[in-house]
Amino acid sequence: MGKDTIQLTEPIVRLFQGKNFAFVSTLMKDGSPQITPTWVDIEKNNEYSILVNTAEGRIKHKNLSRDPRLAISVINGSNPYEMVTIQGKVTEQITRDTAEEHIDKLAKKYLGLDKYPGRSPGEKRVILKIKPERIFYHDFQPPIK
Amino acid sequence: MGKDTIQLTEPIVRLFQGKNFAFVSTLMKDGSPQITPTWVDIEKNNEYSILVNTAEGRIKHKNLSRDPRLAISVINGSNPYEMVTIQGKVTEQITRDTAEEHIDKLAKKYLGLDKYPGRSPGEKRVILKIKPERIFYHDFQPPIK
Repeated sequence: MGKDTIQLTEPIVRLFQGKNFAFVSTLMKDGSPQITPTWVDIEKNNEYSILVNTAEGRIKHKNLSRDPRLAISVINGSNPYEMVTIQGKVTEQITRDTAEEHIDKLAKKYLGLDKYPGRSPGEKRVILKIKPERIFYHDFQPPIK
Repeated sequence: MGKDTIQLTEPIVRLFQGKNFAFVSTLMKDGSPQITPTWVDIEKNNEYSILVNTAEGRIKHKNLSRDPRLAISVINGSNPYEMVTIQGKVTEQITRDTAEEHIDKLAKKYLGLDKYPGRSPGEKRVILKIKPERIFYHDFQPPIK
């Protein structure tokens, strides 16, 4: 039904490239889990990194600045039985112009807009660069009536 | 953009009643977060409980038996910008016939089948009854091109 891997194989990369929402789980100060649906991106340099773009001071950002461990999951919007869940860490936070341009790139991907329409006054965007450590991928076609 | 509430209001109940997938985050033994997409149900007695059905011995079940704190999130399959995220606890685990019948009920909801088709030999189902403690609901129509 599924398998463990340490590699981001092609079908997994496609899940992150697609217009699918990711669910990110972080740790609150008391160690309890927190979860947020979010846009997501993937980029390849030497190896793949998963990128999430948030704003400074949001719960996700505060939590990950304190404890970089997170889990992230994506399902295929067209077939929710194709799914990936990843446990990993934020290895880098990227701010300023790079992060501002990146949220516009995501607005293009998810909304078809050149500029991200959701900016609050004074908001500073942050890219969270995620290194996967444990990957579980699952793909099956259930018998749907 | 969103609001905090302690009540499961009608739109939130509808998200859990709909054929939407939930994402559940639990804590691994080392305290790191883990996440799984899953079917979900909601029922009302005196108050609403969120029900997730898993099998004994799965990661989610092991984690929640050790530490009952979890987070759960659902987005509307037709409009992913309608979403709810909840932090709470598993207050009860229900097994045996009730749990076996309940997974068939979920197979009906999600697959249109009378019997859950995914049973492994010897598998024992468990209902995780979830009490919400912190609820965040968010609904907006983004300007999509």
